[in-house]
Amino acid sequence: MNIPVIRNVLEESDALARENRATFDQHGVFVVNLMGSPGSGKTTLLLQTIPRLQERGFSCAVIEGDIATTLDSERLAPLGISVVQANTEPFGGDCHIGSHLIKSALAYLDLKDIRFLFIENIGNLVCPAEFYLGEDRKVVLLSITEGEDKPLKYPLMFRECQACLITKTDLIPHLDVDMALLEKNIRNINADLEILPLAAKYDEGIHRWLEWLMQNLETAGKRVGVKS
Amino acid sequence: MNIPVIRNVLEESDALARENRATFDQHGVFVVNLMGSPGSGKTTLLLQTIPRLQERGFSCAVIEGDIATTLDSERLAPLGISVVQANTEPFGGDCHIGSHLIKSALAYLDLKDIRFLFIENIGNLVCPAEFYLGEDRKVVLLSITEGEDKPLKYPLMFRECQACLITKTDLIPHLDVDMALLEKNIRNINADLEILPLAAKYDEGIHRWLEWLMQNLETAGKRVGVKS
Repeated sequence: MNIPVIRNVLEESDALARENRATFDQHGVFVVNLMGSPGSGKTTLLLQTIPRLQERGFSCAVIEGDIATTLDSERLAPLGISVVQANTEPFGGDCHIGSHLIKSALAYLDLKDIRFLFIENIGNLVCPAEFYLGEDRKVVLLSITEGEDKPLKYPLMFRECQACLITKTDLIPHLDVDMALLEKNIRNINADLEILPLAAKYDEGIHRWLEWLMQNLETAGKRVGVKS
Repeated sequence: MNIPVIRNVLEESDALARENRATFDQHGVFVVNLMGSPGSGKTTLLLQTIPRLQERGFSCAVIEGDIATTLDSERLAPLGISVVQANTEPFGGDCHIGSHLIKSALAYLDLKDIRFLFIENIGNLVCPAEFYLGEDRKVVLLSITEGEDKPLKYPLMFRECQACLITKTDLIPHLDVDMALLEKNIRNINADLEILPLAAKYDEGIHRWLEWLMQNLETAGKRVGVKS
């Protein structure tokens, strides 16, 4: 088994990610990579978040990652924003978005008009954490239905991210789940991770999430205020 | 990029899986590979299934796959069966169980005394579907909370499996979910897939699942009745 070959592939991936980042910085685009298991609520979060950013005068776009189908892009269509669907099925059904796909997607976006670019990664709590795409922030969504032990069992994702959204908290009354234990397990893996409970269906927690986005847009050093 | 290297790795993986299968057949062990997203209910299913198989006189064992921790093995300890924990973190945090890990795990199991061997794969709806381990049957667990569109968006898993357990159906009254649409989407990908709705916490659906296991033990051509 020829290890150096695999290393070259990763190096190439990182080099492309750095190119993407330089492009984002040049245009003052703040990029958030949303990751999490299938059904953790990534698309629902975008449907709740983007209209509120638009209300504040910020233009948004989405790169929608899926193995197959354009279902998520279709859900986002009513927002009237630029959405690029990146499907990995033609590339062997890759389990994560690669930096080469982001680079290809950028050809379809007019970055000078975009302030927030969301990458909705493929539903997978493991592999996407391994790949830098050029984003400013990594965010993991964990559905409360997945159980308190997941941060311990899938530690890399929780180490790599800057925020963890705990979604579907409206289901807590119907589950045997210990929220304090879940938060303790998250802190055990990454004491600096911002924990944001959220029931996007009912708007709960959205305000704190928007504030987090605003603060991070600023600390990322993008040219805040230059464009809306 | 040296494609032949990757092909060789897959060929080696398949060769080891065929060796595993020959070992299982030699000892009349029926092997089920359980797959699904993190929190889809794989460990809970084992906790409900194994005591009922034991009541019927069948001996069971589990190979427990995780990236990190022995949490799931500890949950299974009260069953008093052989459990081998296979962690991938020392192997770069692999996102699936490989046939080499199964082969290594077999050294810790006395196969002549085992009728049912369950492999609990790593929580991931994508990658585990790509790897044959030597099992007799592949089963996917999909939590009802994950949404109706998942079979369309993660098609390989649903193509590769022989049964799909739809878990946590006790939550249906609290969700906006269309069970008929979910079943239609599954059939769209794989018309032959056995669909088994299940609320393991409340014993619902367990009877049909046990019957499915019994039928498949027989049709797999293992030496039924030779040992219990």
